Amino acid sequence: MAHQEKETSGLEWRITLGDGSSKSLVPETGPVSRIWMWLKGLMAGLVLKVWKFLNKAWDIGVEDPRKVIHCLKAGMALTVVSLVYFTRPLYEGVGGNAMWAVMTVVVVFENTVGATISKSLNRVIGTTLAGFLAFGVHWVASLSGQKFEPLIIGASVFLLASAATFSRFIPSVKARFDYGALIFILTFSLVAVSGYRVDKLFALAHQRISTIIIGTCLCILVTMLICPIWAGQELHALTCRNMDKLAGSLEGCVEEYFDNNGELEDSDKHPDKKLLGYKCVLNSKTTEESMANFARLEPAHGRFNFKHPWQQYLKIGSSMRSCAYSIEALNSCIDSENQAPEFIKKRMSNVCLKVSSNSSCVIKELAKTIKTLKKSSSIDFLVEEMSSAVQDLQNEIKSLSSLLSPAELLLPESKETEKTTSTIHLLEVLPVVILASLLIDISSRIQDIVKTVEELANVAEFKAEADDKAKQNQANINRIVPSQQNDDQQTMKALERA
Amino acid sequence: MAHQEKETSGLEWRITLGDGSSKSLVPETGPVSRIWMWLKGLMAGLVLKVWKFLNKAWDIGVEDPRKVIHCLKAGMALTVVSLVYFTRPLYEGVGGNAMWAVMTVVVVFENTVGATISKSLNRVIGTTLAGFLAFGVHWVASLSGQKFEPLIIGASVFLLASAATFSRFIPSVKARFDYGALIFILTFSLVAVSGYRVDKLFALAHQRISTIIIGTCLCILVTMLICPIWAGQELHALTCRNMDKLAGSLEGCVEEYFDNNGELEDSDKHPDKKLLGYKCVLNSKTTEESMANFARLEPAHGRFNFKHPWQQYLKIGSSMRSCAYSIEALNSCIDSENQAPEFIKKRMSNVCLKVSSNSSCVIKELAKTIKTLKKSSSIDFLVEEMSSAVQDLQNEIKSLSSLLSPAELLLPESKETEKTTSTIHLLEVLPVVILASLLIDISSRIQDIVKTVEELANVAEFKAEADDKAKQNQANINRIVPSQQNDDQQTMKALERA
Repeated sequence: MAHQEKETSGLEWRITLGDGSSKSLVPETGPVSRIWMWLKGLMAGLVLKVWKFLNKAWDIGVEDPRKVIHCLKAGMALTVVSLVYFTRPLYEGVGGNAMWAVMTVVVVFENTVGATISKSLNRVIGTTLAGFLAFGVHWVASLSGQKFEPLIIGASVFLLASAATFSRFIPSVKARFDYGALIFILTFSLVAVSGYRVDKLFALAHQRISTIIIGTCLCILVTMLICPIWAGQELHALTCRNMDKLAGSLEGCVEEYFDNNGELEDSDKHPDKKLLGYKCVLNSKTTEESMANFARLEPAHGRFNFKHPWQQYLKIGSSMRSCAYSIEALNSCIDSENQAPEFIKKRMSNVCLKVSSNSSCVIKELAKTIKTLKKSSSIDFLVEEMSSAVQDLQNEIKSLSSLLSPAELLLPESKETEKTTSTIHLLEVLPVVILASLLIDISSRIQDIVKTVEELANVAEFKAEADDKAKQNQANINRIVPSQQNDDQQTMKALERA
Repeated sequence: MAHQEKETSGLEWRITLGDGSSKSLVPETGPVSRIWMWLKGLMAGLVLKVWKFLNKAWDIGVEDPRKVIHCLKAGMALTVVSLVYFTRPLYEGVGGNAMWAVMTVVVVFENTVGATISKSLNRVIGTTLAGFLAFGVHWVASLSGQKFEPLIIGASVFLLASAATFSRFIPSVKARFDYGALIFILTFSLVAVSGYRVDKLFALAHQRISTIIIGTCLCILVTMLICPIWAGQELHALTCRNMDKLAGSLEGCVEEYFDNNGELEDSDKHPDKKLLGYKCVLNSKTTEESMANFARLEPAHGRFNFKHPWQQYLKIGSSMRSCAYSIEALNSCIDSENQAPEFIKKRMSNVCLKVSSNSSCVIKELAKTIKTLKKSSSIDFLVEEMSSAVQDLQNEIKSLSSLLSPAELLLPESKETEKTTSTIHLLEVLPVVILASLLIDISSRIQDIVKTVEELANVAEFKAEADDKAKQNQANINRIVPSQQNDDQQTMKALERA
């Protein structure tokens, strides 16, 4: 087809070069059409980029529709505050302070309730504190005469701004009052610089703080009442999700290692994604810390009290990360070049798979414990199972000794030809033994997770699982709640008296 | 002494209880003195807390004096902009827009030059874009009559605020334009709500944007001219520092493992701190990413061009993290309960220590390469050394086979008493063999780091080391720099002609 077209295209300019070959001359396109082509290419590229961007945005929205809801909420809060002030424009009445309400909504409205409350508190406290300080400085400056006024104000701005900026480097301040320090600097310099007379300043401060409070209240109400997203609940869900991912990765990695060509092919179409779940655990430290910080400020919601021990979730997270590091090492065993011979792998596969499946059962049970906020009745049994599987694995490793060839290295030359296939090198066994010892290591790290989750269950006073009435009663009696014990004692005494 | 005092304290009230024992009654203090005690305790606690806080702040300042300098710079910039507007107060002339300059300085001034430039760009672009859009919406709304005006403005605020809020969830936008999106929403709603007539809006927008530009320029000048902290340089230094820490941890861990009681005691007073250096590598991902983002915006500074390949530092960081995960596993070997018998440890210690010291030499050389921006002449040799040490270690593991007792498990009961001390279990060897295999794993991960650093050296066109003239010349000729090659060819031709 292409050849035919070429033949029918009519006239063609050719130039014969020095070495005998000839070259066809393509007619040169005009500058206008070249610019047109370039523009077309540019536009196509741009459209493609925008399309990709929108596609990505769509995916994000579909993946977590609450993000879309948050955006609609933010838009709503802003529209409400805007329209209130639009009907009463900036230049009449409110003295230009209406913009502080709009500004507050824009800056304070955050994804989670805790974050919104934290920013609101920061904004109100920072503004108030800075306002009073600036007022004091203003008063002192106005007393000291016109010559010293700029000097005093300049020095105070310099000192306080420097100090507040420095405070933002201190980790404990950074974590909780970063925004407050910023607002403090902002308000202090604005008020100090304003040049209003002191009596006028009071009215101004009153207006400004009241608009800010209106803005923050609106934000807090909207975040709390319309499809609220609680930082605490998010932290809770993140912890459960990470546990499930950890369990999935652990099981998946070991299965992948012992998978003899295609066993998993049908059941897992995307094994990689499941295997790499532990990476989420490795990367969620920052998120967990900020969530725990915000959750402290949230009122009781859902199944959580105001004083729910959110800090304990950080400990759980850290023990999970410690486990994830070992899974990372496990994962590198899969890709390793040195692999044990098939028959050793087969020999070890059952017991290794048992350890990994028992371990991931423990993790899944812990995830369930946290998810349901109920003490598990089977966790002790599952840990026991895991330990016995680990014991089996250790015995299996011990039994591998019998296959090793000890004499080989002592008499390397003479015995070379007589080597039988039933004895093997230590080096050959090594990859699978390392995998096994990593599994043992992981199981001991899982016991740390169990401990931290149990601490959470005790501090947060989880109830025992409902499906086991007898155990629940036992647990209730054993639970060390002084008030409960006192109640019990009083009941007993009352019974004795009767 | 206490007894004597009790005797001399005179009168004492005692009460005799039902069971015959007597109890001394302490004279009750008055409510005033109790409140006084409580207040004193409160004050002491508060003073102690403040003292601790100040102490911590002092430590932070001493540890990194540049933080103090940054605070002084911030204070200075703010004082300058404040005093300029203090002499020309807010309520005359500048139409209340002076506060935008103050606000800009407070919000935009950041620790590093790159961060300040990034925020400045975000602020200027966000404000301009939103201003124009709001102006357009205002114009359309004013055309459509008083009835529809609030409707159109409300709808536009809702739509654009929602969309801009959503864009902040998209990772690529979040990383670079998060602040810009915030400023966009802020400016758009402020202008849309303002209710000014369109002709007045232009003058307003002009003033506002010019004050913002004045503020940003002041910030950029102050950050760049007075003791500048460059994000690029920070990223560079962080990478070098992390490499040194990685090398230190690796060497320290292995030394600690083979340390026979107190060898290190004198030389390292704080071995723990050195050992845990790798944790810094694990936790620096977020910092690296934001630094690389800011560094892209910085002009050429020090030894870095404008187009220095900062993204490559992220690859180096990720390969270092992969190595740090293995060191984490190595570190858990130290604390493990299962330890190999001393004589096996001794047997393996030399070759393991050699691998670890050679490996950390490679890392240190890489750190030097990055620090000096010069291609190392000895890196190939060091990698070679490391590989040969790894080979030795593998041979040593192989030779351990000779010590293992294979028959023991086949005849466990009968041979129990005849067991000789020269043969050992696989389980006993295991801990040290695992350590060794982790070392082998680490050395292969180090080779990944070598690769990423070499990529950096090629892309950033590092020069060869100066101390080795002959090699440097060789490297210069081999380097694929077309312009240089052309120069060389021209020189050769000129020589031929002569």
